[in-house]
Amino acid sequence: MPVRELGLPVRVSSPGGLPERVTIWEVGPRDGLQNEQAVIPVEVKLEFLDRLAGAGLTTIEATSFVHPKWVPQLADAEELLAGLRFRDGVRYPVLVPNERGLDRALAAGVRHIAIFASATETFANRNLNRTLDEQFAMFDPVVTRARAEGLDVRGYVSMCFGDPWEGAVDPAQVVAVGTRLLDMGCSQLSLGDTIGVATAGQVESLLGAFPSVEPLAVHFHDTYGQALSNTLAALRLGVSTVDSSAGGLGGCPYAESATGNLATEDLVWLLDGLGVRTGVDLDALADTSAWLAGKLGRPSPSRVVRALRG
Amino acid sequence: MPVRELGLPVRVSSPGGLPERVTIWEVGPRDGLQNEQAVIPVEVKLEFLDRLAGAGLTTIEATSFVHPKWVPQLADAEELLAGLRFRDGVRYPVLVPNERGLDRALAAGVRHIAIFASATETFANRNLNRTLDEQFAMFDPVVTRARAEGLDVRGYVSMCFGDPWEGAVDPAQVVAVGTRLLDMGCSQLSLGDTIGVATAGQVESLLGAFPSVEPLAVHFHDTYGQALSNTLAALRLGVSTVDSSAGGLGGCPYAESATGNLATEDLVWLLDGLGVRTGVDLDALADTSAWLAGKLGRPSPSRVVRALRG
Repeated sequence: MPVRELGLPVRVSSPGGLPERVTIWEVGPRDGLQNEQAVIPVEVKLEFLDRLAGAGLTTIEATSFVHPKWVPQLADAEELLAGLRFRDGVRYPVLVPNERGLDRALAAGVRHIAIFASATETFANRNLNRTLDEQFAMFDPVVTRARAEGLDVRGYVSMCFGDPWEGAVDPAQVVAVGTRLLDMGCSQLSLGDTIGVATAGQVESLLGAFPSVEPLAVHFHDTYGQALSNTLAALRLGVSTVDSSAGGLGGCPYAESATGNLATEDLVWLLDGLGVRTGVDLDALADTSAWLAGKLGRPSPSRVVRALRG
Repeated sequence: MPVRELGLPVRVSSPGGLPERVTIWEVGPRDGLQNEQAVIPVEVKLEFLDRLAGAGLTTIEATSFVHPKWVPQLADAEELLAGLRFRDGVRYPVLVPNERGLDRALAAGVRHIAIFASATETFANRNLNRTLDEQFAMFDPVVTRARAEGLDVRGYVSMCFGDPWEGAVDPAQVVAVGTRLLDMGCSQLSLGDTIGVATAGQVESLLGAFPSVEPLAVHFHDTYGQALSNTLAALRLGVSTVDSSAGGLGGCPYAESATGNLATEDLVWLLDGLGVRTGVDLDALADTSAWLAGKLGRPSPSRVVRALRG
């Protein structure tokens, strides 16, 4: 008998610190697909987005206005947004790298954007070809104009725990970068472990260095298998927005190096078990990810998807 | 630059509850290999065991005296033990299913054994063809004789959280089974989530139902991706013996259903990051698992092995 019919996982109210409800910030269509080698037709993406909303996800990062030269997988951003069937109660934020991206987002009717900043000097230089100060100078007019237009702005902070060139990242540095983004007008910070090296104690140290966890979300990668235990540590400190990718999109189950995002299904299995509400129907979500894995021609990296739908 | 050379993961002393040192009970050569389809030559197994000890593991479950009809992968138990190069400070426990198995273990000079009990009536019936009471009647003479011979006996308790036929398992039932095994003479209980369904709150509930965590070890499977976050929950409650399988042996990175053990490398990454001592050299261990994955002809399911050696 399938374990889901046996009522597993068992809901247990855990002691202390857990939020009653968690908002899952679904990044599969953007952060997931931009890291997949296959380019997916826009009609498949639209069905994917619609099925994610149908499974109960309420925040779905739809695409990115990064230049197609850098992310050809998302070159269809305008066409995607034109075809998107918006649903009541579902937000579709879009990643915007600069003012040109904001122009495109505004023209497409986007209401929620995200910007992608670096916590470290070296990654700002490598990823944005800017110093840390210059990245703020680039983002400031984006956030100011977006806010003036009534848009909500999330700030991603990348390399919050370790950086491939600098090594360990000082929490004070992350707090400084995050504070500048909040002061600029961002409503939320997504603290990213971009290379997946963090462990639970580091998560606690960084979250504890912020004056409040209220504006904080977490974004973990499973490169070293730590994404879910890091998430558990963050939940215990009261974080109530968690980024994840349906089916673990962006990773690969048999690649030599698996650098993918936390799989949304594995997160929901944990949250269901902890008795934390998400509004997500795990079976409908696993069906969706299994269907998309079929389109990608390979198994899902999500362990839950493979166990339930393998 | 490889992240290991950058000193990642960063050691952070976490607040509260963590043991200073964790004993990793390495189950790869037994629980791992018995679930691999490939049958590995005994000389490869001997090199594997020797390399595991060389990497700093001090408790390595070497093999099983289950009848070869049931586990043909371990039919070479006597030959393996005859060829094993014992090292000071390293224990090589062996799984023993019954008195016939104990006879074989004693003849082979084994000093540490483990028995494998069920927490549920249905699994006792399916796995051992016995009722719960009959399993104790079977194990009692095994433990009594082993103890009289000066052997140390560990009791595995399987299906501690969920059972594929019965659903959720009552912690009181697990405590009752475990207490009988301790009363019989077992020095340690390994509480197993045999089908991998547990989440962190259940782990806390079960561990909290025992009068003391001192004789408890935990044994998690990663079927639903929960093994490491469950381990973190157990560590927070003071558990200081954790079972894992080098390279995630017993799982498969591209099988439709991944039912493997927690990978030792992913566990060591967490413990290194938490500043909990294990004595394990992660690089030497990852080398060993990458080498064995080559013998098995497929990538390791361990994310750390794939990230460091992929």
